[in-house]
Amino acid sequence: MSRFEDIRTGDTRSLGSFAFTAENIREFARKFDPQPFHLDEEAGKKVFGGLAASGWHVTAAWMKVMVEDLQRGAAARGETCEPVVSPGFRDLKWLKPVLAGDTVSYQSKVISTRVSGKRPQWGLVQSLNTGTNQHGVLVFSFEATVFLPRKTA
Amino acid sequence: MSRFEDIRTGDTRSLGSFAFTAENIREFARKFDPQPFHLDEEAGKKVFGGLAASGWHVTAAWMKVMVEDLQRGAAARGETCEPVVSPGFRDLKWLKPVLAGDTVSYQSKVISTRVSGKRPQWGLVQSLNTGTNQHGVLVFSFEATVFLPRKTA
Repeated sequence: MSRFEDIRTGDTRSLGSFAFTAENIREFARKFDPQPFHLDEEAGKKVFGGLAASGWHVTAAWMKVMVEDLQRGAAARGETCEPVVSPGFRDLKWLKPVLAGDTVSYQSKVISTRVSGKRPQWGLVQSLNTGTNQHGVLVFSFEATVFLPRKTA
Repeated sequence: MSRFEDIRTGDTRSLGSFAFTAENIREFARKFDPQPFHLDEEAGKKVFGGLAASGWHVTAAWMKVMVEDLQRGAAARGETCEPVVSPGFRDLKWLKPVLAGDTVSYQSKVISTRVSGKRPQWGLVQSLNTGTNQHGVLVFSFEATVFLPRKTA
């Protein structure tokens, strides 16, 4: 992700990818979504065709690659990484199961940018975020809104 | 959560609570949201007034208490726990920071129920889910839609 001033509607960016393994799927599920099809391969096969990642794991992995992309961008410019503060998101969709062995590549496309009316030192960026597996199948999407500080404010 | 047949619009249920600690906030952040204000108390103080949990951690904790509530309900009826399968979520809002030492209590209120048109063996339950901290402050809300199997189908 770039600085607010450099972001344009329509910009599309590959954020990075995340490899889902039986081990990390089970680890997340034990802590936050202890349902059999997230913990046990046989139970997962019956419902999803394999050991399936929690939808929240797929979502958290998006956050991870998004933050890392932001940090790489800042480091490349020799800047301190800006905080990503979000008031929330809209219309999260888990479209297809994510199974052990799948790698999901995340993309972000800017839908709109505007300066905050209440806090003009901040910009608001709305984006459509998607995750696609190694077979090219869209598995995940949602609309995010994030605040970014304005350099010029 | 009850069986689909027992769920009525307006039903409100306490799902359980989750205690956010400096340790579990940092552990989640290291894996999924490695921003300074989720990892370092001083950095958190500057932005949020304390070491702040990732919004996705607050969300994952909702999933944990919701699944555990469902499992307790099934166990009390001597039944196998039904899977919670969701096509996605709407309008997630992180309204206030959740800090180390906070305990968030989660509630769920049924907005609507209907039998799936495409798959009549399933019911769809739409609910407004909220999280409130130990001071009674609303910190989190979103609308969930989940599929539940129909016993009578």
